[in-house]
Amino acid sequence: MQKFSPLSFPEFNKGAVWMVGAGPGDPKLLTLYAYYALQRADIILYDSLIGADCLALAPDSTPKYCVGKRGGQPSWSQDRINQTLIDHAQAGKAVLRLKGGDPFVFGRSVEEARPLLKANIPLKIIPAVSAGIAGSAYAGVPLSSAETNQSFSFISAHDASGSLPALNWPALSAGSPVLVFYMPLKQKAAIRHALLDAGRPENEGVCFVSHATTAQQKALYTTLGACLDDFAKAPLTSPALMIVGPTVMVHDTFVNIVG
Amino acid sequence: MQKFSPLSFPEFNKGAVWMVGAGPGDPKLLTLYAYYALQRADIILYDSLIGADCLALAPDSTPKYCVGKRGGQPSWSQDRINQTLIDHAQAGKAVLRLKGGDPFVFGRSVEEARPLLKANIPLKIIPAVSAGIAGSAYAGVPLSSAETNQSFSFISAHDASGSLPALNWPALSAGSPVLVFYMPLKQKAAIRHALLDAGRPENEGVCFVSHATTAQQKALYTTLGACLDDFAKAPLTSPALMIVGPTVMVHDTFVNIVG
Repeated sequence: MQKFSPLSFPEFNKGAVWMVGAGPGDPKLLTLYAYYALQRADIILYDSLIGADCLALAPDSTPKYCVGKRGGQPSWSQDRINQTLIDHAQAGKAVLRLKGGDPFVFGRSVEEARPLLKANIPLKIIPAVSAGIAGSAYAGVPLSSAETNQSFSFISAHDASGSLPALNWPALSAGSPVLVFYMPLKQKAAIRHALLDAGRPENEGVCFVSHATTAQQKALYTTLGACLDDFAKAPLTSPALMIVGPTVMVHDTFVNIVG
Repeated sequence: MQKFSPLSFPEFNKGAVWMVGAGPGDPKLLTLYAYYALQRADIILYDSLIGADCLALAPDSTPKYCVGKRGGQPSWSQDRINQTLIDHAQAGKAVLRLKGGDPFVFGRSVEEARPLLKANIPLKIIPAVSAGIAGSAYAGVPLSSAETNQSFSFISAHDASGSLPALNWPALSAGSPVLVFYMPLKQKAAIRHALLDAGRPENEGVCFVSHATTAQQKALYTTLGACLDDFAKAPLTSPALMIVGPTVMVHDTFVNIVG
């Protein structure tokens, strides 16, 4: 066990659930808190986005279960995840619920927390580096620059049903110079159409980045006008981000020096 | 030196500058990468937002200089910071430029990187947990919830001149259900006025949180209509965040279980 002296961590008590963000993929971006939780957990339930190199930081002897889609198996239902967390906690284990990215950034943690709290399970939630922040940076795209923008927006590209969320596209487009879409690949044509319709220019910079911050990271730099054609020529796979805005233009300067 | 076996980190070479995010304040939220950099640096130049408990993770023998406002001394100019980074790198040191929050979230890192690159200094930039993400979470305010919003926006409450940035407030207000303002205290009346003018309701939830994620954290939960009066009764000090949106309403559920 690493000590990080003089830091002190709370006890990871038996019977508790810790819902911990694992960050964007690069295990070097795990927080010290997440690293501590990985050492101390009795059991780990993790999303399919969590990489083997993050899980490898926990002891080999700790049981680890994937609750997301993997190897052709479907995701567990939210009810099954909740009940499993409750069962292991009530059996007296220190239960680590390891989530991709940050728990509160499109992570359904509000919904996952409620049944645990209702069952009187002691719960702790630990923030993390969000994929939108580090994934864009590793692709060389700053979220803000004093030269171009004092605001940016994060958008989930699908709601609970898998559809593009009902958003006020003209307002989003006019109000946010830099837009970061999470999980955009199925919705990219709809996103492009909505943004062009709302007045964003054809030559605006677009970056797709898949498996961001991992050894499998791939990025495509294009424009709003050309992004579907360019994507078809060099398709990327999920998980991915789509970043739209002026800061995409400086990627050449930054892509090889982040991370 | 902690090893985090089986993780491997790049060499922190002599003559290089690493621009590393220190996260929001709680040293437990430092990344493993930042922790590694703290161990290896020959010299550390840090913002005034960096807490003593983060710096204490570096060896006592490592020289550490604050380049921000502190103890009545003015901030260093950006030119002086840049020249100092270049001088120490050219003198053969492994130079750690430690920045509050994430380097690319309103951190002026694009502007700070350019002169280093121009001087051919090997530069690396390391993302971190942004204050807007962890600070809101530690105050019990999720950035997203499937029940209320599939998007949110981060906004710097001042531009380079210290004024409220020129934003399209009606669009920002209509397009972003949850708004997180960085460093809002001098601009809170203008922000409130602009949002009410743009049609956000008087009873919309507002959370101010200061010194978020640290032992000095204080939060004020109020509404857009009442926020100036409530703030006057219980003023908070900088650094702070102002979060506006429906997720403020669930803070009672989450405030004591995050972090």
